[in-house]
Amino acid sequence: MEKLFIIKIGGNIIDDNSALNSFLLDLSKISAKKILVHGGGKIASRIGEQLGITAHYHNGRRITDDKTIDLVTMVYGGLVNKQIVAKLQALHVNAIGLTGADGNVIAANKRPVKEVDYGWVGDIAPNAINHDFIANTLTQNLLPVFAPLTHDGYGHMLNTNADTIASALAIALSAQYYTRLIYCFEKKGILLDVDDNHSVITQMNKTLYADLMQQNRLFAGILPKLDNAFAAIDNGVHEVLIGDAKDLVANTGIQTKGTLIST
Amino acid sequence: MEKLFIIKIGGNIIDDNSALNSFLLDLSKISAKKILVHGGGKIASRIGEQLGITAHYHNGRRITDDKTIDLVTMVYGGLVNKQIVAKLQALHVNAIGLTGADGNVIAANKRPVKEVDYGWVGDIAPNAINHDFIANTLTQNLLPVFAPLTHDGYGHMLNTNADTIASALAIALSAQYYTRLIYCFEKKGILLDVDDNHSVITQMNKTLYADLMQQNRLFAGILPKLDNAFAAIDNGVHEVLIGDAKDLVANTGIQTKGTLIST
Repeated sequence: MEKLFIIKIGGNIIDDNSALNSFLLDLSKISAKKILVHGGGKIASRIGEQLGITAHYHNGRRITDDKTIDLVTMVYGGLVNKQIVAKLQALHVNAIGLTGADGNVIAANKRPVKEVDYGWVGDIAPNAINHDFIANTLTQNLLPVFAPLTHDGYGHMLNTNADTIASALAIALSAQYYTRLIYCFEKKGILLDVDDNHSVITQMNKTLYADLMQQNRLFAGILPKLDNAFAAIDNGVHEVLIGDAKDLVANTGIQTKGTLIST
Repeated sequence: MEKLFIIKIGGNIIDDNSALNSFLLDLSKISAKKILVHGGGKIASRIGEQLGITAHYHNGRRITDDKTIDLVTMVYGGLVNKQIVAKLQALHVNAIGLTGADGNVIAANKRPVKEVDYGWVGDIAPNAINHDFIANTLTQNLLPVFAPLTHDGYGHMLNTNADTIASALAIALSAQYYTRLIYCFEKKGILLDVDDNHSVITQMNKTLYADLMQQNRLFAGILPKLDNAFAAIDNGVHEVLIGDAKDLVANTGIQTKGTLIST
């Protein structure tokens, strides 16, 4: 089975031009097939403020109203996405920028309004990934670069969490490729001591997770990431790696530096 | 030879949501292979003003400084492009939004600085179109939707005239397809009397053009469009049609309503 890396980067890299450049240089050194998913970063909030778009939140989650979906479509789907693509082209990586609307590659459902109306937010339905489109793109040796946007099939763009997009893509491609889903964040990996970068748990499986949970030894902030990781594994993804963007090359190899999660 | 329509729309349609919707509905009725190229529209200027980006011009041409290339990358490559793609998906047309950077489909050279520095403006080099990428896209029955942006191969996006992109695409694909390059504008076609929409010149060739020029019977504003059209024809494009976006369906047929230009 051919290897495929699905790599997600977040705002901490996108907002730091030199970190982004060195990450993309590392990415260009990986010859295996790969998909990049990027988050948003603070630039959308900054531009939104300049445009006088007021941000509304519910329990820390931003509400995507009409103006906000236009804003993130511009900033994530336009500025951030195309800058990454142009930089990769300069590194001789044939990247192609995509949202879920392009090629109908990720259809989503607008989140139903219950107690809260989150606005133009998209939840990815099971089997909503256009597998053939992506497989064809990879076969052409193109590197798909996904912005955190999907569409509803009724003409509207939707704001969708980048972690979720990365996971849905990995799940959809796991029948055809040996998938490693890589979440880049600001730590070396999952740490036993949150203040000690040398305390990385290098291998994690469900048994160890259950043990560590029972012993209350995991930092609460990391639990959603781990739950997502095991959900991906349960749905067919071969490996999930949580680690530092700076360790990308190692983390796509055999001697990984981050936390490698498997069944 | 299979037919291919390369259709360019400008700001007058992009800025008018109901005109855009009805144009896209017409486009969805055309079963032949097609490529859409869109211009910018006034929305970039509007958002630029709100962001406090001062527009600088030389002889009526906007200078694309650092802030302006970010602005148009956001607005044309993100907002306008993805809105069109999402609307086409809703019409069950499998569109894919592209800039010249995506798939390295249109490489360009930053315009050399002579008397004037136009900034991040790209001129398309001959043979700079990635023909295989587009041909593959068309074979998959995808409709490529191009924003008026290219890249320089050194990591920078470039602002590029939409008419020029449409023409370069048509030229590059004319060996494989029977190409009709359609420029949509606000008139029915090229008029003998600029105030009379019934005076469309339905067929035009070089001999007629030369005659009309000699008789001074053409409105000066249309001459650059005609020169572009004949340049495309000289470079292998089979037909160029200049007409009203409202007549798209007729203008992709045999009984055209606009001005059909051939050798």
